[in-house]
Amino acid sequence: MKEVSKLLDYRSDIKVIDATLRDGGLVNDFYFSDEFVRELYKSNIRAGVDYMEFGYKASKELFDVDKFGKWKFCNDDDIRQIVGDNDTSLKIAVMADVGRCDYKQDIIQKSESPIDLVRVATYIHTIPEAVDMIEDAAKKGYQTSCNIMAISNARESELSAALEILGKTPVEVFYIVDSFGALYPEQLERLADIYLNFAAKYNKKVGIHAHNNLQLAFANTVEAAGIGIDWLDATYSSMGRGAGNCAMELLLGFLRNPKYNVYPVLKFIQDHMVKLHDDGIVWGYDLQYLVTGLLNQHPRTAIKFTKDQRTNYADFYKEIITEEV
Amino acid sequence: MKEVSKLLDYRSDIKVIDATLRDGGLVNDFYFSDEFVRELYKSNIRAGVDYMEFGYKASKELFDVDKFGKWKFCNDDDIRQIVGDNDTSLKIAVMADVGRCDYKQDIIQKSESPIDLVRVATYIHTIPEAVDMIEDAAKKGYQTSCNIMAISNARESELSAALEILGKTPVEVFYIVDSFGALYPEQLERLADIYLNFAAKYNKKVGIHAHNNLQLAFANTVEAAGIGIDWLDATYSSMGRGAGNCAMELLLGFLRNPKYNVYPVLKFIQDHMVKLHDDGIVWGYDLQYLVTGLLNQHPRTAIKFTKDQRTNYADFYKEIITEEV
Repeated sequence: MKEVSKLLDYRSDIKVIDATLRDGGLVNDFYFSDEFVRELYKSNIRAGVDYMEFGYKASKELFDVDKFGKWKFCNDDDIRQIVGDNDTSLKIAVMADVGRCDYKQDIIQKSESPIDLVRVATYIHTIPEAVDMIEDAAKKGYQTSCNIMAISNARESELSAALEILGKTPVEVFYIVDSFGALYPEQLERLADIYLNFAAKYNKKVGIHAHNNLQLAFANTVEAAGIGIDWLDATYSSMGRGAGNCAMELLLGFLRNPKYNVYPVLKFIQDHMVKLHDDGIVWGYDLQYLVTGLLNQHPRTAIKFTKDQRTNYADFYKEIITEEV
Repeated sequence: MKEVSKLLDYRSDIKVIDATLRDGGLVNDFYFSDEFVRELYKSNIRAGVDYMEFGYKASKELFDVDKFGKWKFCNDDDIRQIVGDNDTSLKIAVMADVGRCDYKQDIIQKSESPIDLVRVATYIHTIPEAVDMIEDAAKKGYQTSCNIMAISNARESELSAALEILGKTPVEVFYIVDSFGALYPEQLERLADIYLNFAAKYNKKVGIHAHNNLQLAFANTVEAAGIGIDWLDATYSSMGRGAGNCAMELLLGFLRNPKYNVYPVLKFIQDHMVKLHDDGIVWGYDLQYLVTGLLNQHPRTAIKFTKDQRTNYADFYKEIITEEV
């Protein structure tokens, strides 16, 4: 059992990362108003959030710039429009996907960019390219993390091999990304144990990015914090793909470090996010996500079910269960 | 860390209790149609649920029978209308609240009743009357549990004294009732430790009834099952007061015992509960419940906020935080 003192004390190593624009952007094709982004930035500063992820550095060859809002691409100038010289304690992050980012040209020298942290998102089988991206970004002067997606489908042996390789790179944080929202706390604990062992060996930190398919995004993040994971992703009002993420308002309410403050988060949701719902933008836990989460599947079928405004959950379950494999 | 075998194996001691009519009845004043109740009964049988709670045995002196549906009162004849002689593996439960139940007259001899289990709901300071109710029901031939409400506000010393007293009664199950949805998993673990020690001493079982204010109802129920708590309450689609309860569909999806089956639950929700939402009946996690959960308060202010259809969550937080104590 954990020590009583930890119930009231806090670990100052914890970092909170706001991924609202990046994961939430997957819900509205990154069409956030400048006012929304500016107010979110201010809210994060007031709330004591450590990093704000603005979006993706997506390839403009692969993605049509006319079909997405600007945070799909995160031009340095667009970020600077919001943050100026960012003379604050809040650091700026972007995500760069393996195979979907022209990182050699689009990630410029850190000395000319408002960005602090490049989060390299990879599947376990694309680690070699992730390593190249990490080394490129580190050489340019950025902090880096490696976010290993779909981790609930990774074999332990491959994960260990991946972390052994990553340990020798300049990456600062190994990330557990439960893309399918399929991990129960005790499975997370087991995975985290592998991560934490390699992190100790190579002097790295570990992070978690959870999805809420089984209503466990917050619970798994709390569990993670309790066992030594330091970097915790969250999004305002859980905004994110499918069932969404660990809610920032739950996470900051839980963390005991007095630098964190939940009120600005509630205020931002009240002033800027209730309207998103009213405008018909849909995300968050629902039974179709439970089904894909239970079955440890990519949520794409559940996202389509949501888009089609269906509520025949049992029929959906039957469709998935009876599908030829 | 828990044993790997437990990830795939299951404990046959686990009992699942469907509290949809009872806790859900608090949302719609117990006005469920007979068809709803009959189909729920059939669904529970198909899903392998162990107990179905039909509602309260509420005092007809204290509550006006014209202002509530019949499951507020659970006349034995009304239950029999649904279950006949209940020649099934599903057992029937009702809840009897200390101070709100004329138990001496309204709870008849078990031999003449379709009810199997009387769940006595009490606050920690009303344990003496709870004991009288437990002894009365046991003498009449019922199984009994003692459901200690608002447990997140109980002092450990008083809880120990209460469990010592209850240990000497015929009660079969001590229940942790997180009425305010305010417990984090590690706090639950600590509380459960006290319960489990007294349960071992007096050969009782322990149960959990969770609320979802912090999106932890399912997570806490899973945690409870992992540390030796056997009786697990859930409700279909989380239907229950305020933020609702642990979702039956999540719980049955998690439990590995092949006797449990999630499909009938999804089917019942699709066929009978989507309509409740469409008819404007509101329950479930939202930010006002997060606020009362964080502050370990009774959700009555949040329920009013919901009823008033407010969405100014931050203003609500300010109202609560700045209230004179």
